[in-house]
Order: sequence, then C-alpha cells, then structure tokens
Amino acid sequence: MHETNRRYVLAKRPEGVPDKETFELEETEIPDLETGQVLVQTVYLSVDPYMRDRMRAGESYAEPWDVGDPMQAAVVGRVVDSENGQWNEGDYVTGELDWAEYTVTGGSALHPVDPDLAPLSTYLGVLGMPGRTAYFGLLEEGKPTPGDTVVVSGAAGAVGSTVVQIASIAGCRVVGFAGSDTKIEYLEEIGADAAINYKQTDDYRAALDDAAPEGVDVYFDNVGGPISDAVFTKLNTDARIAVCGQIAHYNEEGVVTGPRKLPQILPTRATISGFIVSDYAPRFEQATQRLGNWVAAGDITYRETITEGLENAPDAFLGLFEGENIGKQLVQVTDE
Amino acid sequence: MHETNRRYVLAKRPEGVPDKETFELEETEIPDLETGQVLVQTVYLSVDPYMRDRMRAGESYAEPWDVGDPMQAAVVGRVVDSENGQWNEGDYVTGELDWAEYTVTGGSALHPVDPDLAPLSTYLGVLGMPGRTAYFGLLEEGKPTPGDTVVVSGAAGAVGSTVVQIASIAGCRVVGFAGSDTKIEYLEEIGADAAINYKQTDDYRAALDDAAPEGVDVYFDNVGGPISDAVFTKLNTDARIAVCGQIAHYNEEGVVTGPRKLPQILPTRATISGFIVSDYAPRFEQATQRLGNWVAAGDITYRETITEGLENAPDAFLGLFEGENIGKQLVQVTDE
Repeated sequence: MHETNRRYVLAKRPEGVPDKETFELEETEIPDLETGQVLVQTVYLSVDPYMRDRMRAGESYAEPWDVGDPMQAAVVGRVVDSENGQWNEGDYVTGELDWAEYTVTGGSALHPVDPDLAPLSTYLGVLGMPGRTAYFGLLEEGKPTPGDTVVVSGAAGAVGSTVVQIASIAGCRVVGFAGSDTKIEYLEEIGADAAINYKQTDDYRAALDDAAPEGVDVYFDNVGGPISDAVFTKLNTDARIAVCGQIAHYNEEGVVTGPRKLPQILPTRATISGFIVSDYAPRFEQATQRLGNWVAAGDITYRETITEGLENAPDAFLGLFEGENIGKQLVQVTDE
Repeated sequence: MHETNRRYVLAKRPEGVPDKETFELEETEIPDLETGQVLVQTVYLSVDPYMRDRMRAGESYAEPWDVGDPMQAAVVGRVVDSENGQWNEGDYVTGELDWAEYTVTGGSALHPVDPDLAPLSTYLGVLGMPGRTAYFGLLEEGKPTPGDTVVVSGAAGAVGSTVVQIASIAGCRVVGFAGSDTKIEYLEEIGADAAINYKQTDDYRAALDDAAPEGVDVYFDNVGGPISDAVFTKLNTDARIAVCGQIAHYNEEGVVTGPRKLPQILPTRATISGFIVSDYAPRFEQATQRLGNWVAAGDITYRETITEGLENAPDAFLGLFEGENIGKQLVQVTDE
C-alpha cells in the first residue's frame, strides 16, 4: 500500500496558451480513510479541451478550478482501499477524480466499469463522455436525416471520429475537417465521404464546393474559427449547427471577433444550438448501450492516443491544442 | 378610368446605404386587361427593411429585383377593373403588387380584405405580415414561458411592438430597445417592463443589468450589431434567440465582423434560429384570427406612420434605416 501520492494542482491561471507554469506536480501523503471513503488508484486519466475553461476565473458551465487546488479529470481506476460498503478492493470504477495517482473520494460519484465487457480505456472514450457527446450532439441537436450532408470539424478527435461514424450509420454524406495527412487517411478509413486537411489549404469554401456539392445540412462544430466561417457560407435551408466545442478560441483572451453569423442564418432559417452532454444525463444508459452495440458490431471503431506517466499529463493536455492526438487522448498512470 | 400609371423601378443597385439614385419613378400606360387579369389601385403600400435585400444581386430568401424592373411591396388596394370572374370592381384586396399607383395582376395571388372588420391599413401591419412575423417568431422560435425575460430589439417597429405585446400576454417580463424618447414612452404605454434608448447610452450591458436583472431567456432580434452583442452576454441557460431581422447590417457590404457568438452559446446551451414567416404559411389563418381577437379586445394596440403620396415611398423606405417610424411604416397612395 502506497503512502504518498502525486497530483497536479493549478499553479496559476494561464493567459492565452497554458504552459508548464500552469501546472504543479505536488507530493502529498495519502490520509487514512474515514468511514464511507474509498481510495482509487488511477489507471487512465482523460484530458479534454473543455478543461481549458476550468482554468479561467469566472462563470462557465464547468466550475473554475481554484489556484493551488487539485485539478479534476474523468478517470478509470481501481479501488485499492475502501471504508465504504458499496465498493470493494479490486473493483474497477470510473468517475470525476483528481489528476493524480490516487484519489480519496466519498464513493457516491463513482460508477462501476466491467473490464471484461470492453477495454478499460473505452469508458473514457467511445463508451464515455466523448461517445455520449457525439451521440446526443449529432442525433438530438444536429437531427440528421438520410441523405443529409454532415460536416464535422475536429473530425479525427475522440468526439469527432464518433460523430463521423454515427452520421454514416444514419445514412448521411459525411465531410470531416482535420489537420494532418494521417488524420485524413484515418477519416477515410472510418467512412468519411470526404476529408479536408485544413492545414493544406486556406480556401475552405472551395474545398467545401468539392466535398459538399449539395451544401451543408448539419454542422457538428468542435473547433470554431475560420472553418466555421466557411461552413456557414454553405448552409442549406433549415440547416442545424450543433456547437460542441470551440477549441480554436479557448486560448484567446478578451472579445474574440469574426464574421457575423446572425445575418447568415436568416436566409437559411438555420438553427445554431450550444449543448452540454450532461443535460442528457437521464438518457446516458441508452447512449452507452447503442454505442456498445455499434462497437461490438464493428460499425464504430475507435483510436486512442496514450501518453505514459502522470508527469506527462500537462503535455498530453497541451497537445490537444496542437492537434497531436488521433482519437481519444489518454494518460496511462499505472498498469491495468 | 385612369390611363397612365406611375411606378417605381430599381434604377441601380445600391452600394451601402440606398439613396435617391436607387429609385426611378416612371410613367407608363395602363394596358387593356387580358382575360383573367385584374387592375388594382393601390391604397396603402408597405415598405419593409427586408426590401434592402432584394436590391442586392445574388441569392437570398427573397428573389433579387432586376435593375429596370418594377419593385414589389405588400399592398392593400381596390379592384378598379376586372376580366377575372373571381374579382369585381370595388373589391378590396391585398397582395404582393408593384410600388405603383396601379398594378395589373392575374388575380391568383390576391386575397380579399374586409374594410368593415378592421381598418384597411391593418392588413399590412398587425393583421398582416409584420403581425404574423411577431406571432410565429416569438411563440414558435422564442418559445416564451411565463416568468421569462424577453428582450426585443427594434421594439417600437411594426414587428417589435407586436412582439412586446404578445410577450406581455404570455406572462413574460419584456425589455425593449428603441432609439428615441418618444419610442421609449410608447414602449412603456404598450406594456414593456423596461425600455432602453440605445441612442442615449453605449453601455448596453449595464442597461441590461437594470432592465433584465434575472438575465435573458428569449431574445427577439430585429437589429443585430452592438445591441445583440450585449444581449448575448446576458443569456440564461437554454435561452432562445429568434433572428427576425438584422437591420443594422443590411446596408453593410462585404464580410461584416463582430464578436463571435458561438463560444458564448456553448456554456448557456442557447439556441439561435433564423426564421422566415412564409415558412408558417399553413398556419397564417390561426395567427390572423388570434391577433384579430387581441386587437378587438384591446390587448394589442398598434401605431402606424403614414407617408402620403407614392412619390415619397423611397423616403419612407429610407426612413426605416434611420429609425424614423413608430409602428408600421406605410405609404398612402390614394384615399381609402
């Protein structure tokens, strides 16, 4: 039984792009458990773009982290000690825990995971928050119908690659934007009808002329910025835009400006909706079940980019903004 | 029986703000009617902001006017000659006719109006397109529920003033933006809970702190620009934005930029929807009936700004962009 723990705390709030100064790895003692508490050892830790928002002071949908306090992440781990009747040593669990080797938790926010049913890591990816985000964002906000053209930005990421595949299952023409040749190949592998490398052209409108010759019915937006600006010029009547993320803007400070979109949605009667996957919590089980079936049937495949070692978690996080990951970016903290 | 007609044609496409050069008043002969045709004398002619869009080449939801061709408007008039069994001399009608003293039409796009049921002019205002736009835009796109705070830009215009009153009927707190003291008084008269003169302050956010202390649930946007920028910073969770018009931008050329709104709607899960009233055509009768009942009961009142004489139609139209009108801007071409 370990007696010391290593965990990341928010060292200071970043201005613009976070860097190594943003994070501090601190060593602490693991306290004795009180009644009801559980000690979880992190196996995989998920780093996600939305975490940038929690580094910022002020209101958002996720509560900001305090400077000096541990940062949280979706984690898959195993129970190594328990004073809680609900959890036993050796149980595999998932929950919102610390960026740490170990977390002491009350146990009520943990969910069981079954390593025999699906690989442990998938509970942070295609069967976890990113998969559910793709599922509800595309189907409930994007409302695709067969024959629609669906455009996905950040298409090779954990959410985007799942959206691409669900849109294919739904009978749509799928166009993905991604930032490297490897990612473009990956998108073609998973069934995208066209894929645009946004680092190889500035003229996204022209690229869309070829990739989406019948215009855009659904836009699943993970990115924002110039990709969105181009897609908005190609919207069909009654187009739906699901705003899932805006990674292009997370590191920008102050008022970010760009082409106005409200005048553009008037002639098209388009609908733009922001959504947060947690709003769909009552239906999470449905999503996990369907995603699990599609994965089991081979209709949805997934990739992971795994960084080894807790100490490299900041690099893994910062890599998201450089587009380094294909599929889900995880940090493996200890062996399964 | 008159033998000559005066009508406005599009003399040239404006760049930026239209001016007198945009319009040309031409005199023509009224041709003999062919079988099936009807000659309608214009009594009232409606000028509306969306007409600016028809002066522009290129696709929009309304077909562009060709240079040299007559411009169209919603008109209330009377049949003065008819070779069509459906229409008789003396009938009052409404339809999309020319900016003219007389229009020869096939008669199929005319609708009867009853001058005994409601004043003729209201068929171009509260019981016409502006009233229906307010009705469907607020209720179907804005989806107000009792207790919501509804913000309306361009609140003293034909559409806006009807939105203010329907939102009051729907049990909402209503905040209107308008551009003169007279308009602010008018908004208070018709039941706005707060009214902001956007020409008297630059700090719309601070004004909204007072006027909408519980944030904004529904934004009915006729205007765009800095008013919208401020309202977007005050959106509540699940806010609905109905984009009806963007008069602040109609005279701008090229790519218009401003604060990006997609990042803002993510934490709020807001929905922005563009709409065109004609999409609700199958339900127009319902809207007209309810609006008529509310007008008859005094729950909805209306104002009109009437410019006399066809020759002054361009001034009436240009005045819309200066915010000169309260309520519906009409041109009276001849006596009722």
